[in-house]
Amino acid sequence: MILADITQNPQLGVCYYPEHWPEDQWQTDAANMVAAGLKWVRIAEFAWSRIEPGPGRFDWGWLDRAVDILGNAGLSIVMCTPTATPPKWLVDKMPDMVAVDAMGRPRKFGSRRHYSFAHQGYRLECARISALIAQRYGEHSAVAAWQTDNEYGCHDTAISYCATAMRGFREWLAARYGTPEKLNAAWGNVFWSMEYRSFDEIDLPNLTVTEANPSHALDFFRYSSDMIAEFNRIQSDIIRKHSPGRPIAHNFMGNFNQFDHRPLAKDLDIAAWDSYPLGMLQDMHLKARSDKVLNRDCLRTGDPDFQAFHHDLYRGMGRLWVMEQQPGPVNWARVNVIPANGAVRLWSWEAIAHGAEIVSYFRWRQAPFAQEQMHAGLRLRNDDAAAGLAEVSKVAGELASLTMTAPQQAEIALVHDYEADRMSQLDGQTEDFHYLRLLLDIYRGARQNGGSLDVIGPDAPLDGYKLILLPSLIHVSQELADRLQASGARILAGPRTAAKTEDFQLPEKLAGSILADLTGFVATRIDALPAEFPLPVEWNGQRGEVSVWHERGEVSSQVGGQVGGQVGGQVETGEPLLVSGNRGGYLTGWADAELLRQIIGTEMQKAGIECHDIPDYLRIRARGDLIIATNYGPEPASLPASVDGEFLIGERCVPSAGVTVIRRAQATK
Amino acid sequence: MILADITQNPQLGVCYYPEHWPEDQWQTDAANMVAAGLKWVRIAEFAWSRIEPGPGRFDWGWLDRAVDILGNAGLSIVMCTPTATPPKWLVDKMPDMVAVDAMGRPRKFGSRRHYSFAHQGYRLECARISALIAQRYGEHSAVAAWQTDNEYGCHDTAISYCATAMRGFREWLAARYGTPEKLNAAWGNVFWSMEYRSFDEIDLPNLTVTEANPSHALDFFRYSSDMIAEFNRIQSDIIRKHSPGRPIAHNFMGNFNQFDHRPLAKDLDIAAWDSYPLGMLQDMHLKARSDKVLNRDCLRTGDPDFQAFHHDLYRGMGRLWVMEQQPGPVNWARVNVIPANGAVRLWSWEAIAHGAEIVSYFRWRQAPFAQEQMHAGLRLRNDDAAAGLAEVSKVAGELASLTMTAPQQAEIALVHDYEADRMSQLDGQTEDFHYLRLLLDIYRGARQNGGSLDVIGPDAPLDGYKLILLPSLIHVSQELADRLQASGARILAGPRTAAKTEDFQLPEKLAGSILADLTGFVATRIDALPAEFPLPVEWNGQRGEVSVWHERGEVSSQVGGQVGGQVGGQVETGEPLLVSGNRGGYLTGWADAELLRQIIGTEMQKAGIECHDIPDYLRIRARGDLIIATNYGPEPASLPASVDGEFLIGERCVPSAGVTVIRRAQATK
Amino acid sequence: MILADITQNPQLGVCYYPEHWPEDQWQTDAANMVAAGLKWVRIAEFAWSRIEPGPGRFDWGWLDRAVDILGNAGLSIVMCTPTATPPKWLVDKMPDMVAVDAMGRPRKFGSRRHYSFAHQGYRLECARISALIAQRYGEHSAVAAWQTDNEYGCHDTAISYCATAMRGFREWLAARYGTPEKLNAAWGNVFWSMEYRSFDEIDLPNLTVTEANPSHALDFFRYSSDMIAEFNRIQSDIIRKHSPGRPIAHNFMGNFNQFDHRPLAKDLDIAAWDSYPLGMLQDMHLKARSDKVLNRDCLRTGDPDFQAFHHDLYRGMGRLWVMEQQPGPVNWARVNVIPANGAVRLWSWEAIAHGAEIVSYFRWRQAPFAQEQMHAGLRLRNDDAAAGLAEVSKVAGELASLTMTAPQQAEIALVHDYEADRMSQLDGQTEDFHYLRLLLDIYRGARQNGGSLDVIGPDAPLDGYKLILLPSLIHVSQELADRLQASGARILAGPRTAAKTEDFQLPEKLAGSILADLTGFVATRIDALPAEFPLPVEWNGQRGEVSVWHERGEVSSQVGGQVGGQVGGQVETGEPLLVSGNRGGYLTGWADAELLRQIIGTEMQKAGIECHDIPDYLRIRARGDLIIATNYGPEPASLPASVDGEFLIGERCVPSAGVTVIRRAQATK
Repeated sequence: MILADITQNPQLGVCYYPEHWPEDQWQTDAANMVAAGLKWVRIAEFAWSRIEPGPGRFDWGWLDRAVDILGNAGLSIVMCTPTATPPKWLVDKMPDMVAVDAMGRPRKFGSRRHYSFAHQGYRLECARISALIAQRYGEHSAVAAWQTDNEYGCHDTAISYCATAMRGFREWLAARYGTPEKLNAAWGNVFWSMEYRSFDEIDLPNLTVTEANPSHALDFFRYSSDMIAEFNRIQSDIIRKHSPGRPIAHNFMGNFNQFDHRPLAKDLDIAAWDSYPLGMLQDMHLKARSDKVLNRDCLRTGDPDFQAFHHDLYRGMGRLWVMEQQPGPVNWARVNVIPANGAVRLWSWEAIAHGAEIVSYFRWRQAPFAQEQMHAGLRLRNDDAAAGLAEVSKVAGELASLTMTAPQQAEIALVHDYEADRMSQLDGQTEDFHYLRLLLDIYRGARQNGGSLDVIGPDAPLDGYKLILLPSLIHVSQELADRLQASGARILAGPRTAAKTEDFQLPEKLAGSILADLTGFVATRIDALPAEFPLPVEWNGQRGEVSVWHERGEVSSQVGGQVGGQVGGQVETGEPLLVSGNRGGYLTGWADAELLRQIIGTEMQKAGIECHDIPDYLRIRARGDLIIATNYGPEPASLPASVDGEFLIGERCVPSAGVTVIRRAQATK
Repeated sequence: MILADITQNPQLGVCYYPEHWPEDQWQTDAANMVAAGLKWVRIAEFAWSRIEPGPGRFDWGWLDRAVDILGNAGLSIVMCTPTATPPKWLVDKMPDMVAVDAMGRPRKFGSRRHYSFAHQGYRLECARISALIAQRYGEHSAVAAWQTDNEYGCHDTAISYCATAMRGFREWLAARYGTPEKLNAAWGNVFWSMEYRSFDEIDLPNLTVTEANPSHALDFFRYSSDMIAEFNRIQSDIIRKHSPGRPIAHNFMGNFNQFDHRPLAKDLDIAAWDSYPLGMLQDMHLKARSDKVLNRDCLRTGDPDFQAFHHDLYRGMGRLWVMEQQPGPVNWARVNVIPANGAVRLWSWEAIAHGAEIVSYFRWRQAPFAQEQMHAGLRLRNDDAAAGLAEVSKVAGELASLTMTAPQQAEIALVHDYEADRMSQLDGQTEDFHYLRLLLDIYRGARQNGGSLDVIGPDAPLDGYKLILLPSLIHVSQELADRLQASGARILAGPRTAAKTEDFQLPEKLAGSILADLTGFVATRIDALPAEFPLPVEWNGQRGEVSVWHERGEVSSQVGGQVGGQVGGQVETGEPLLVSGNRGGYLTGWADAELLRQIIGTEMQKAGIECHDIPDYLRIRARGDLIIATNYGPEPASLPASVDGEFLIGERCVPSAGVTVIRRAQATK
Repeated sequence: MILADITQNPQLGVCYYPEHWPEDQWQTDAANMVAAGLKWVRIAEFAWSRIEPGPGRFDWGWLDRAVDILGNAGLSIVMCTPTATPPKWLVDKMPDMVAVDAMGRPRKFGSRRHYSFAHQGYRLECARISALIAQRYGEHSAVAAWQTDNEYGCHDTAISYCATAMRGFREWLAARYGTPEKLNAAWGNVFWSMEYRSFDEIDLPNLTVTEANPSHALDFFRYSSDMIAEFNRIQSDIIRKHSPGRPIAHNFMGNFNQFDHRPLAKDLDIAAWDSYPLGMLQDMHLKARSDKVLNRDCLRTGDPDFQAFHHDLYRGMGRLWVMEQQPGPVNWARVNVIPANGAVRLWSWEAIAHGAEIVSYFRWRQAPFAQEQMHAGLRLRNDDAAAGLAEVSKVAGELASLTMTAPQQAEIALVHDYEADRMSQLDGQTEDFHYLRLLLDIYRGARQNGGSLDVIGPDAPLDGYKLILLPSLIHVSQELADRLQASGARILAGPRTAAKTEDFQLPEKLAGSILADLTGFVATRIDALPAEFPLPVEWNGQRGEVSVWHERGEVSSQVGGQVGGQVGGQVETGEPLLVSGNRGGYLTGWADAELLRQIIGTEMQKAGIECHDIPDYLRIRARGDLIIATNYGPEPASLPASVDGEFLIGERCVPSAGVTVIRRAQATK
């Protein structure tokens, strides 16, 4: 097996849909893939109607032949379950399997993802088709890995307000709380006479007159996340049984928070994701605090930190693959521009820098029909090479010329939590607060100082980190607080941290109290600001501003004289921006990018982490003894002298959309 | 009874939910309330599920004990009916009791206000629970007043498109019109073959292909308003029977126009409202013609006139209480900032200046759970004092040091009408016309000249007013026209006045004709302008602009040579901005703030009303022989020399968010 | 008959609703119409409930008398079928006749257009009432023309997602494709396992999880267009049978693309439309690439090219009438301003210049009731003359003083296609692409060079044109490509042309290949740009920009050395803006207005078409030997010396909102 190898030395792949093309073209396609330097090919992703054209009527021949042709060409196959696209005959057998949206409307057949994760009948159908595929191809020599379904939750499908979910949610609540009284207490249902006498009285939290109880909504989010994990586990169990030794992946998405990915990822080997830097730039562009200058300068390269963040995020959940890498202009964002020359290579190297084992491009050839016909591939519809292909081959050649190692643990951990994200949405106060945008700003601050980070969940081990960043981790358990205390790491908590209990209540002590020894701050009042009126602030001689969110409170009495760390005050009130405690600090507001860069740089230095002075759109990332530099800006940018070693690829001055790879003289962590 | 007293000398109160807290905390809470200077406490507002946990199963004990504890501490209790929050078991008994929204969707249990006002079954349930509560506590010595339900219409619940409403509306129409032919004539149904042959053919005016007939929609508004009044009357009749001598209140809202409040208010003693200045500033901020500079400068104090306007509005419907006063940052607006230091006191004094008998803060302590957990109280969740508490106690002390009188009638009346508001929405031409915003601009113009106003309905007596303002009173009845003529007051009518009949038709004569003797103008054409292209205008040497709305027409021939009052003309056409008639004038467009200040000041002077030159964000209000000055601006501001007397509280220079109280040497009206 | 005459010499008319007014007023109204110079009157448009107050119960008397009174006064009558407004009793007979919107909601009675075009029961009712009216009035001497229904598709009614449509669509698909396999291939349903086994499995393309297959949506557009054509044909066949010799019109709308008008127009004699220049300016103002300066300068006159474009568009489908001409301020747009003095005359002359036979004003007198009571007429509600009436009479007098001829074919053809418009919506990439806006920009470019254009469908003959403009004609059939080749005309194709097959697939060769001999370009990548980041470009020494859309590709190899026509390059990439082929060129992006003016002027010159240097808001249009000049700008503007002849009306310097008519010395085409 080649699998041990890719953990050290990454390879490239491509998504391919043989069923879209005449069979006599497959052989040529396979040969061209190999010639381009690709080693992996993902197939069968949406092919249910071709595998089983009618109920119980199968056509395996074409897929058998495709697997053989691709395998014989030397390609390793990622085989998919086709459960994202149940055929019409299947939906017609059980029309209540479709998801119901928040407005109560059943969603119809005619695109994809037309199912509710909770539906037992559909789960059985998925088990059936998955078992058939796994049995047939599980031990085929060319099948080297698996993908379950496709992009769980895409198109707002994570949460269904269907009758199945209503029944299931009641059972889930009964199992969680035992008695209605305990649920009423946990949710605070006394508030508006929302108390229930039995679990059967409980509805789904949609179409309420005003917002539902946020505890109710949070539990429905948890339930829905559990349903997705259960749905996936059925498939992963089947595949594991029939296809021993092959790792199982699912392809997650970027900027997606509609279910908790971590429980599901425990059933996977590989936490893959689909990386579309230009579409995601446009998506994030609509959020508060987006940076118009960056959006212009990086229009054709993408946000310098968005992909990196997600690589680190998913690497925190399993082995990292990029299952779909944008190969050219796509079709689905607000606007869809042509990538900069070199950008496809840039993105590939960014993934590799962060530990990706496979970078797989979506897709081999642009299909001439249906919803994604305007989405580029590596080849045009007429089979001419598309612009991205040469860049892919260049990366393949570069990879072949290097010996690499698996990525090591970073010195900085950024704690990310899907429940915290959901809580921040449910907790209101301002529509302009965007959890991922805040984390991205914090992450960027560390990257701009040359930092490499791990993004971890709240349950992850903390050993070995020198600095742990906790922005907006709304619920901090006592267990985590104890581990943070025990970790020895420096802690930078930040706005909104430890503000709620697990049940979505205010803690008995003030917000942040559970960490007050470490961070020195408890919050008593929140200033949720209009985006147009930021607060001027000064920190360490640097003028800047805090926008969207600021907290006022007290320097914790528990830390007494050790604090003294009130550094800088916002103009209007003299309230602190950063408070220091025993082992770190608390950032009281959402500071601007330059302030974050300086504050986080200072924290890194206090934690004993080497900082580099990196130009605006340049980034560096360590992988083993390599440093990979990427330039997302429109102009060439030079690495500082502090970043040095043997230049394996590129030079100190990195061109726009360029990449430089350096081997460091001595291995450092 | 203390009731006679509060009409002279205001007191403070608080909203309290004993059911949210352990019973052993109640005694301490009561003592702390009294210590803070509070005299009133409102309870039981949403407590139905605790009073009647299951159908016919009651738990009165806790409420009995709470009433005793609070009463024994010396507090006067405002007892509520809990009908805004029917429990789940009750909704499950008659699932069709919920409201249906304009898109035809029934709204579910899970928050509050999940009922249709028209539903007979729910009315019976409300009568039953109200009678039980009124019988039990109606003559309790501590129970001094009542509140029915909570915030009728909140969360878009005034209008329900349910089957009950459909049947009721048909009966209501039959009663109003007698025959379908009369209805067809009144609505002009010939227009698009919309004629009905029987009342049973008539649907509710939602989900039509394009907008419904505005007469149809207006009658449905009237019907829906009647349903709310009927709903409330059931409770007020019951309370009045069982709790003699105690006044009955309902707590209305700010910037709320979804039903006609005045018919309902006739069944109340007290027209209370819930005053949230900062949330309301954000709400109004989204309307056309909002003032960005004011929004920035008053971000933490609120609009200098919004609260004042509503105090005057509700004082025009009954005795004025503020049932819920914002005590700190709240949770439900677009953004939720921290009030300025002093703002809670500022708002309290503004209410008192306008005749409030009680200012009651929402709420005693921040609840840790459910939808409003981020809404501040006077105490934090951990029972520490919140920032607002000291300001409340300061007001309590100030009130104790003064002897006051009931407010007197003002010299200026501003006529406000819920039907006029509704008509302006239904009559289209521009989305940027906002009735309340226009009235607020006119009201502001008078306040900036130091004026005190009454806000009255079109049926109110006009005796004693020197100046009557009639902006956008779209329907003016002959009866009102006659009374205006007879009143002797100076009249300033204004854009859109007298443009429609009661049935929402164009009057047979031109718009405004019914008042043309007084105002000198009839309108023939409306210029509904893009907000981005205002019309330059000059008036009395002052350059400014008219935006959103301007009318062209004729100086009334009925007033002949007496007019001559065409003053200033807009640039493009030479059309007048202000036309003068026999006894006042007609403002043809929506002039900017500075023009309105000057025009209204001139009208006040012509009417013999004393004007003062008040700095931008400073306001004064007369109550008896007191003048109360409030400063909403970010900078200190000085009262003009023309405002003088004995300085009881504060000084001539009023600090930001500060208050000054002066006793005038001689009593003037 | 007078019909021969109006093809040469236009006349004026008015829309009238006798049923809105007391019968004793009709005689006076008719006399006043005649006195105003009006010759035509349209009646009975929405009068079903007055003609047939109950099922089978008729009241013809009033209409008989109205026809006689109007006819006796000398007016020619346009009789309408009242099928846009079925009465309530009819809807109650078959409640499923109403349209269902995309969210699945049946639309209720209470306004107009509450029917589905596909509903067989309603079609029978329409046949019945149309036959009765046609039989009764078909040969009446005063009835000179007919109008079917009113504004098909208005208020989003072209497409209904009702059960009738679902059944009908399946049959329509079966007829089109024969077998499900052929449909699956045409739609590319293999893409997401969307394959169907029978036509009965196919749903309507609404409420899908993400967008439906665009081929599916395009066919539903075609089906829905066919339903409207079928619906209309029933009436036109009946009228033609019972009213021989009278032409049949339907009144279409401006900026309306929700069905394909051309198949329907084949069943008409007259392609009338309803022209509301100021409302349309506001409508178009919301689209991408609208011109803020133009919107301000032409606020009270309308877009200088919008009306002209639509006159040419509808003249391409039949004899041109303006059935409803805006007479003053209307009520239904975002904002509704008063037209400039002279604008009603300006619009009338623009219509006449483009070949209108009749200009009919909406409406005689402002109705006092219902949805459009704020819509102006030629007379005020009290029967005073409204401001527009004098302008109408002036036009009537001017027309009486001239002898005119029918309009001749233009030298320039602009190809417009409803399917191309629909395809551009379905094909995504950017929300800012607006087909009509692009065509209008191209049309404007020709007009600014003094050009007169025909707007033609893709099936129209091409003989006689010197220059053919093909912007964004997404599907170009081989048949059309051959005719373009054969035509001898110069071709300017442009962004997005020939990018799809008829089935909405990518063509086998690259986009544009089918025309590459002519235009020299094939597109390989689309740059769909954020509106805020246009691309700087230089062309022929002129600096400007391309926004929203730009294509990159290859200069066609088929045209070899003959090309060389790469003129100017955009800054970032050196890609061409305009490529030249054998017989024209390809515009690769959406250039700004000044660039378009220059590029199109150059193309006109190359094609041998005379250009004039026309000031910004001035326009000229040839009709026979007349040149009609119209000035939409706020300032007077002078015709260039190159435009000369006998000045019949007005002078060389055209005042704001003014008109000049010149008879050319020698007849030119």
